Amino acid sequence: MSCKVVLAQGISVSYREELKNTIKTRNICPKLVGFLANEDPAAAKYAEWTAKTCAETGVEFELRKCSRNDLEDKIIEANQDAGVNGIMVYYPVFGDRQDQYLQNVVDVSKDVEGLHHKYVYNMYHNIRFLDEAKTKKCIIPCTPLGLVKVMEYVGVYNGILPHGNRLHGRVVTIINRSEIVGRPLAALLANDGAKVYSVDINGIQEFHRGVGLQLKKHEVSETTLTVEDVLPLSDVVITGVPSPSYKVPSHLIRDGAVCINFSTFKNFDGDEIKKKAAIYVPAVGKVTVAMLERNLVRLYDYQAQDRVSSTA
Amino acid sequence: MSCKVVLAQGISVSYREELKNTIKTRNICPKLVGFLANEDPAAAKYAEWTAKTCAETGVEFELRKCSRNDLEDKIIEANQDAGVNGIMVYYPVFGDRQDQYLQNVVDVSKDVEGLHHKYVYNMYHNIRFLDEAKTKKCIIPCTPLGLVKVMEYVGVYNGILPHGNRLHGRVVTIINRSEIVGRPLAALLANDGAKVYSVDINGIQEFHRGVGLQLKKHEVSETTLTVEDVLPLSDVVITGVPSPSYKVPSHLIRDGAVCINFSTFKNFDGDEIKKKAAIYVPAVGKVTVAMLERNLVRLYDYQAQDRVSSTA
Repeated sequence: MSCKVVLAQGISVSYREELKNTIKTRNICPKLVGFLANEDPAAAKYAEWTAKTCAETGVEFELRKCSRNDLEDKIIEANQDAGVNGIMVYYPVFGDRQDQYLQNVVDVSKDVEGLHHKYVYNMYHNIRFLDEAKTKKCIIPCTPLGLVKVMEYVGVYNGILPHGNRLHGRVVTIINRSEIVGRPLAALLANDGAKVYSVDINGIQEFHRGVGLQLKKHEVSETTLTVEDVLPLSDVVITGVPSPSYKVPSHLIRDGAVCINFSTFKNFDGDEIKKKAAIYVPAVGKVTVAMLERNLVRLYDYQAQDRVSSTA
Repeated sequence: MSCKVVLAQGISVSYREELKNTIKTRNICPKLVGFLANEDPAAAKYAEWTAKTCAETGVEFELRKCSRNDLEDKIIEANQDAGVNGIMVYYPVFGDRQDQYLQNVVDVSKDVEGLHHKYVYNMYHNIRFLDEAKTKKCIIPCTPLGLVKVMEYVGVYNGILPHGNRLHGRVVTIINRSEIVGRPLAALLANDGAKVYSVDINGIQEFHRGVGLQLKKHEVSETTLTVEDVLPLSDVVITGVPSPSYKVPSHLIRDGAVCINFSTFKNFDGDEIKKKAAIYVPAVGKVTVAMLERNLVRLYDYQAQDRVSSTA
């Protein structure tokens, strides 16, 4: 079989090494605070894993447990504490609109997950910098950003094209349109020039910047297409269906496609997909955590920059 | 417009610089002999251009003019002359099967154009080395090889895949099925993993290695497809129609395609193609000549290798 299986571990190595070197050579110790305000064992597991990874790269990680009703005050306290460089929350907390409210309580300058409205708005509008002088890049949510890095690594981004257009000509299907990953990812990839079919249970939307990338940001249109229509057209298939029983129909995949799974469940039938895909990435978790730390170091630097300019 | 226009000059620079450095630092002077046995002004022009380019990189080029009836003897003489490292002939000479005969008179070890039956056979059978120890790569004809290098340069080859499979997943249309460029090119690209639609006036053939690249070398099958069918499916469109009036229908080109012209005529409408293509390469001549010299240096080294082993 000619399929190349690419593991997240290998992809994350260069990012983690770079982080480690940066932290070591600059002798800095960026601090990340994670808030755990639920009893979800998966969240506790993720927190444990974050702690372990941070320790390896030299990031100081502190897990703060609290009740969900105390969470807002605790976040505000961390916002005001100059010793804290990044803040993350293990969602779901309330599991409703209240969680979205909390995402906007985290200060923009400390939001390592890029969930604040300002970042979300900028991402959807293809605004890549926080400031007009273009010194501060916007924070992109870790999983969509990790998926972009995976796609760069496996050669889907074409480095000869200018930044911002490097997916021109690529057709991508994303099976998942959650607000956390699927929809922002579709927007990011379309903003980078791809034609994206975004699939959820209610149908398929197309995200694109028009023929010849004539639009500055993506547009979304409803289609009457089905998975049977779009999979055979897709150079790249990305899936994140949170169900152990769901499998992408392998026979519809275009020969030589790039197939990426970000669900914790195996959305591709491993044996079947290897017969057709050129590249198969079975999981992306390790790249996601590397992006979390990368965002933290970026925010650390912006905060230092702000302190300099406010004392100047 | 988001189209990136890539010129052959820029692509050839790195190859020419490498050649120049190799020749200079190793203090060698490979010698190429070109035979001109026709009165074709285009051939004379090409010979002049070869001479100029060779002078720039440090290759010794000698043009030998003779009557077509003397040509065979002159080739044999050059075959036997240890001072000659490479031989090329400006075709057409007789313009019939006699030319193919002459291609096989040129010694394999001096055939810079890769037109000897041994090279042609090996190319179609995806045999990449002359020897079992894999120390001597087969010579690939200059224009198809140049087109492969153009495709590598513009990012069509995916470097993360193993050598020999780097076009897996790419769909390529080639408009031209000449024995000199179109057909060998279709075979080369299919052997590297692409699905190739090879178009000529009699119809469209498909060159491919099967789903999941299960075949070691490409197969060819006849299709009933038309240009209207295949262009919208193609990531890459390569054209070499020797006519000033022929134009590839731009409206059929897939948005974001890579479009490459190797005809001396402009087969694409420059304005229209830039509205749709992600990358447009209007000509490839300079890359072809760089490949001619590259083949020469390779043969020079193999000859030295042979002298060492025969005296050992």
